[in-house]
Order: sequence, then structure tokens, then C-alpha cells
Amino acid sequence: MTVTLTLRSQLTAARAASRALPGADRDAWLRAVAAGLRRDAEAVLAANAEDVRAAREAGTPEPQVDRLALTTARIEAMARACEEIAELPDPLGRVLGGWRLAAGPRVTKVTVPFGVIAMVYESRPNVTVDAAALAVKAGSAAVLRGSASALRSNRALVACLRRALAAVGLPEDAVQLVDSADRSLVTELLRANGLVDLVIPRGGAGLIRHVVENATVPVIETGVGNCHVYVDAGADLEMARRIVVNGKTQRPGVCNAVETLLVHEAEAAALLPGLAAELEAAGVELRGCERTRELVPSARPATEADWETEFLDLVLAVRVVPSIDAALEHIATYGTRHSEAIVTRSLESAERFRREVDAAAVFVNASTRFNDGYEFGFGAEIGISTQKLHARGPMGLAELVTYKYVVEGSGEVRR
Amino acid sequence: MTVTLTLRSQLTAARAASRALPGADRDAWLRAVAAGLRRDAEAVLAANAEDVRAAREAGTPEPQVDRLALTTARIEAMARACEEIAELPDPLGRVLGGWRLAAGPRVTKVTVPFGVIAMVYESRPNVTVDAAALAVKAGSAAVLRGSASALRSNRALVACLRRALAAVGLPEDAVQLVDSADRSLVTELLRANGLVDLVIPRGGAGLIRHVVENATVPVIETGVGNCHVYVDAGADLEMARRIVVNGKTQRPGVCNAVETLLVHEAEAAALLPGLAAELEAAGVELRGCERTRELVPSARPATEADWETEFLDLVLAVRVVPSIDAALEHIATYGTRHSEAIVTRSLESAERFRREVDAAAVFVNASTRFNDGYEFGFGAEIGISTQKLHARGPMGLAELVTYKYVVEGSGEVRR
Repeated sequence: MTVTLTLRSQLTAARAASRALPGADRDAWLRAVAAGLRRDAEAVLAANAEDVRAAREAGTPEPQVDRLALTTARIEAMARACEEIAELPDPLGRVLGGWRLAAGPRVTKVTVPFGVIAMVYESRPNVTVDAAALAVKAGSAAVLRGSASALRSNRALVACLRRALAAVGLPEDAVQLVDSADRSLVTELLRANGLVDLVIPRGGAGLIRHVVENATVPVIETGVGNCHVYVDAGADLEMARRIVVNGKTQRPGVCNAVETLLVHEAEAAALLPGLAAELEAAGVELRGCERTRELVPSARPATEADWETEFLDLVLAVRVVPSIDAALEHIATYGTRHSEAIVTRSLESAERFRREVDAAAVFVNASTRFNDGYEFGFGAEIGISTQKLHARGPMGLAELVTYKYVVEGSGEVRR
Repeated sequence: MTVTLTLRSQLTAARAASRALPGADRDAWLRAVAAGLRRDAEAVLAANAEDVRAAREAGTPEPQVDRLALTTARIEAMARACEEIAELPDPLGRVLGGWRLAAGPRVTKVTVPFGVIAMVYESRPNVTVDAAALAVKAGSAAVLRGSASALRSNRALVACLRRALAAVGLPEDAVQLVDSADRSLVTELLRANGLVDLVIPRGGAGLIRHVVENATVPVIETGVGNCHVYVDAGADLEMARRIVVNGKTQRPGVCNAVETLLVHEAEAAALLPGLAAELEAAGVELRGCERTRELVPSARPATEADWETEFLDLVLAVRVVPSIDAALEHIATYGTRHSEAIVTRSLESAERFRREVDAAAVFVNASTRFNDGYEFGFGAEIGISTQKLHARGPMGLAELVTYKYVVEGSGEVRR
């Protein structure tokens, strides 16, 4: 893959700049970013207003315009996020282990930066600040590629991030915007082996699929969550109701929200009519299997597509299953290995579920909504990994670093 | 990317079979493999003899034929390797950490299998047994793609591996050979997102580049090592001599062998003539910079290509540098982030080198040849990673598993 000269020189400059980060006061930079965002809020809002106007003129649906739009409060939230990241412990230089080789030298396994981390993301401009803040705190340069619709906002935010780098004596090239509407640059970025150490996509299913299917540089796949709650025979139905309602309605647009409810047939009649009424009162549309529709006539018939879909909306698919085996099979077929929950009183069912379900996080009698970096106590989150290489589940600063081995001897050689 | 029906059904069968592995006695399988290899040695040797004959007829260079050829002793070594892997602790079910969420539920981070691990490798047929042994011990199905030149040998070995699966009551599909000379199948395998959890290439630089540049499934890049020894001003020159000779001559064909020697100009005159004589007596060809050639007239002039090349042979590039900065710059430019060594008496130089060199393993006063899973005490090795995602440096069983979070509550929901 050829990388155009402009992108190559950006990536090379990013790597060179990254070398200054591990030894520098990255927390001073984060505080400078927070101050700069507050100081330059008007310029950022003006740039964002242009993006918003262009989006509306292009007929962008209003929820998408809302994700794009910045306000003083949203800028303040970005500034606070930077200050909070500044308070987190440094993820670099942590000794993960150490021992003595049989031949004599001692070995230490110590955390070090990736080098160049690229983020490819969609319209929310706050990702620009979040991603750069976490990458730089983790000692890596950040190469940012947001959506074309947010280009003016991202330019203003990146200018702010770079001014803060200069203000604390760090090279500005440690944060870079891929500043072009040219989509072929994304493909180049995804194939810049040797120049990019890690790409993290953040956005909808289409964006993530595009990145995963085209990237030849190392990727952490994030986000798509077709999550299930399975209510076992004999479960505490009040607990089941609480976990399903929370998983579906507390924040339906996020990846750890519940998309399909699986109910053991022994509990269907006792659980479904009341639960359905409560969900419908909260505005949830139900799509059920035949047995569900006998118990909940208001539910629309569920199609194969409903079992496959991450609705990210007030829609819930419901299926009555004859056994835990059928529930496990359904999850293995349709799940995206994100967050899966069982509600049960049976130790055997709990053990089978935690053992047999292949997912980043498996929940026993708790809401899938806990699969989150803040809830896990990481203090920050760049995304939730749904792949198995390197990081699985919530990714905080500890997942944004790698390690090296340092071997120290006194002249030992191999026999 | 479309995956042809045959490969898709193989990969699907591999995943289904993999589910039986974590709960099974995988060590019994490893011992059955060892017994089977000894019992079926004649059939394996006969199949291998056909591969060897065909390779010779095709004019394959003799060193390559030697890598392809099996002997009773080599089969015995494979069997012993399986028995040794059986003795290693189970990498699955290890608790990596655990804590209580602020909201109440407790979380446990526990090791689990990848699922389907694919290996793409070159002519040595022992990789077939090694790779399957490690993948299955780690609870994953192994999908094996060796070179066309070893196809008959690999068929015989995989038959042996699958018979052992059946013998201990495990599904044979947990070990699969991609049994075709059709190269397009490799590309399909590398792009079978969702069907393959991890691909590990093992072989020469060309094979590894092909895999890394074409794979869209998660990959661990292994192997290419353009490794350096830098001899600092004031170093113990006897120690330097020992480390350079060991790194270059003890086993020149491996990735952690030394390819370029960098010498501080203050030590060049004292070190190079004697060291060159010793290396040349051991059959090493030297390729030096201008200053080196003044001190060692027998050295050929080094070209840009020599700094870039992983010789894997009795060839050493030599460059005299004016400072540690120049050495660090040379390594940053030409190194492959594998194994880099400094010989020094200076604490400051040692600290700069360990901090500033970006490599899987950095050595202070020790041979680069220690960057090895066995030397590190891992008891096995699938390869040495030169990327930063997931695993860096030697990969043993601990690097062949992933983890999941298990969250156990009593009905807690998110606020």
C-alpha cells in the first residue's frame, strides 16, 4: 500500500513527536488543554455552528445534528474530562513482572507507549478531545480522523490541543488531524503498516465494519453490542424485570444496552405480560416470537433480522426458549460477544452461562449496563473492545499501552 | 470478502469443536499425540520422503530441503515437545484480577481461549505439531496452513493429531489442515473476520509481510529481527567481544541473532581488528563503513541495503558511530523492534538505551540470543512478536489466551 506523501509525513512527524511524551509532564498538558478549551470556547462554538448549519442544509436528521452540536456545557464537560484524566495514575513505567533468567540476567516487563495511535470516528466532536487526551496521557501521539461533517469543529479543537502542547514545551505534532474530506486517506491510514501502531474505530456498526475489514495495521474493534438478557427457569422475576427495564431504557443508544430478551418458557406467562406493559409504558416497541405474541398481543412479530439487530433504540426483541441450551445457542448465533446477562437462582445455570457464553463481559444477576470503563473504575474509557486480541471489554489507560522486556546482565551469552 | 464454502465450513466446524476443549483433558491429548507420532513414524516419514523427492526434483536449494526433511530423531523431538507442553500449567481459568464495582457487583477477570487460531507457516513440518499442540493446550482450535512443498508431510501429521483427538474423545475438527495448494485460500483465511480470532504467521520476512499486509483478522506479527549490538565508549571490550560473537555465530539463522554491530569511535581501534579476526575465523563475512574498513581492510564496503538486511547468515554489518545518539538513531532507522543490545559501563548510557530504544526486548550487557520463550522460562514458544498489540517478545501459552470479565451481582442496575 502506498501512503501519500502528506499522510506519510504527518505520521512520521507524529512518531518523532511521540518520543518526547513519556518523559514529559503530560498532566500539565491536559490541564493546559482544559484551560485552553475554556478560553477558546467561543472560537470552537463558532466553528461548530458552521458545521451544524451545513449539516442541517444537507438534510441531516436532527438526532445526528444533535450529536454534532457543541454547547458551552459540552465544552466544559470536555475540559473537565481532561482534568480528570490528568488526575489518573501514569500508565507508563509500571512493572508488570520480573524474574531472573536461568542463565543469570534479570528481566523486567515494563509498560511503554504504543507510539502512534490513530482514531477513526464519527460525528461527536468531543471524541477529538477525549481520544487525544487518553492517547497522549498514555505516551502516544494521536492521529485523529473524524467525520467530514465535523471538520471545522475538529480543526478548532485540534488547534486548541496543539496550542496547549506548545504552551507546555511539547512538540505540536504529537496531535494531528487528518484534515481532508478525501475518504481514500482513511484507507491509507488503515494500511500504513509500520507508521501506525494501533487504530481504534469509534462509531456506528458501518464505520467499525469498514475499519475492521480494511485495516492491515493492528486494530482494536470496538462497540457493536447485540446484548441479551436470559431469564432462567426459577429466576427472581422482580429482579429480572429490574435488569431488563434498566438494560433497555436507562440509555438505549449505547452499546451495552439490551437488545433481545430471552425467557425460559416456565417463566414466560408470569413475567411477560407485566414486563411488557411496563416497557411499553416507557415507550419501548416489542418484537416477539409466536409464544411471546400469545402472551403479549401488542408485540409485533419478530423477524430473523430482529434477532440480528443492535437497535440502539427503544425496541426490544423477545423470544421464549425451551431451555438454557436454547438460550446459549441463540446467544452464540446472534450475539456480538459484548455483554450478556443471565438472571437465575440456579448455581448450575450461572456456572454454565459464565463458562459457555463467549463475550467480553458475562453478567450473573446484574445489568449489562455495567460493562463500562467508568463503572469498572478505570476512570476513563476509549471504547469497549469486542475482539479478543490485547484488550477485551472496557479500555482505559492500562489498555492503551504496551510493554517491553528489559534484560540486564553482566556479559552473559547463550550456550 | 467472501469465504468459499469449503473454508467457511472448516472454520465453522473448528469453532464448534473448540467449545469442547476448555473442559477436556487436553494434556491427555498431547500425550496421545506423542504416542501416535512414535507409532505412526513410518507413515509420516514415507509421506515426508515424497515431499523431499518432489522438492529436490523442483531444484529446491539443499538448506531448504533440509528444513523440510524429517528423520526419526526429528519426529521423536516433536513427540517430546508435546509431552513437555502437557507438563506446563493450564493457561485457562487463571484469575488475572478482581474487585468490587462501586455499584455492588463483583468482577473477576479470567483467562479464556481465543476460539479459532490460524497459523500460516513455511516448510518446517514440525511447526504443524508445535502450533496445534500450543493452540489446543490453550483451549483453541488450530487451523493450519503450511507450505505446498510440505503438504504430504502435513497431511500425515494432521491425521496423527486428529486420530489422537478421537482417541481421547475430543472432536477431530479441533485441528484442521487447509489442504490445498490454492494460494487464494490463504487470502481468504486472512480475511475471514468473525470466523478466525487470531492469525499467527511463522516463516521468512516475505511470508510475514504478506500476512501482515493482507490480513484483516487480528494478527500477531512475528519474527523479523534486524538486531544490533552497540558497544559504548568505555565498555568492557572482552564482554563486547563475547556478546557479539555469541549473537552472530551461536545460531546465525534465527531472528534474535545480531545483524549489525555499532561501535563508538572511542573503542573502534581497540575492538575491531581483534574481533574481526575472531569473527572471520568463525566464517563470518564483514561489511563495514569506511572507518571500519580502515581498521579491518578485509571487510567489504557496507551499502544502505546491508543496514536494512536481516542476513540470517554468517554476515555482519559493522558501523563506527560518533556517539550513543548516532547509535540510537541508527537503531530507530533500521531496527525491526525485536532485540537490541548495549554493552556499556555507563549507567547513563544504560538508562538512555533501555528507555529510548523501541524494541520487544532491550539488553544491557547480555546477548540478544536470550530473547526466546525457553530462555525466558515460558516452557514453550509459538514465536516472537514484533508488534505491540497483545503480546510483545516471546509468546508462550500465556500469550495464546485472552480473558473475559465475569460480573456477579444480586440484581444491581445502573443509575
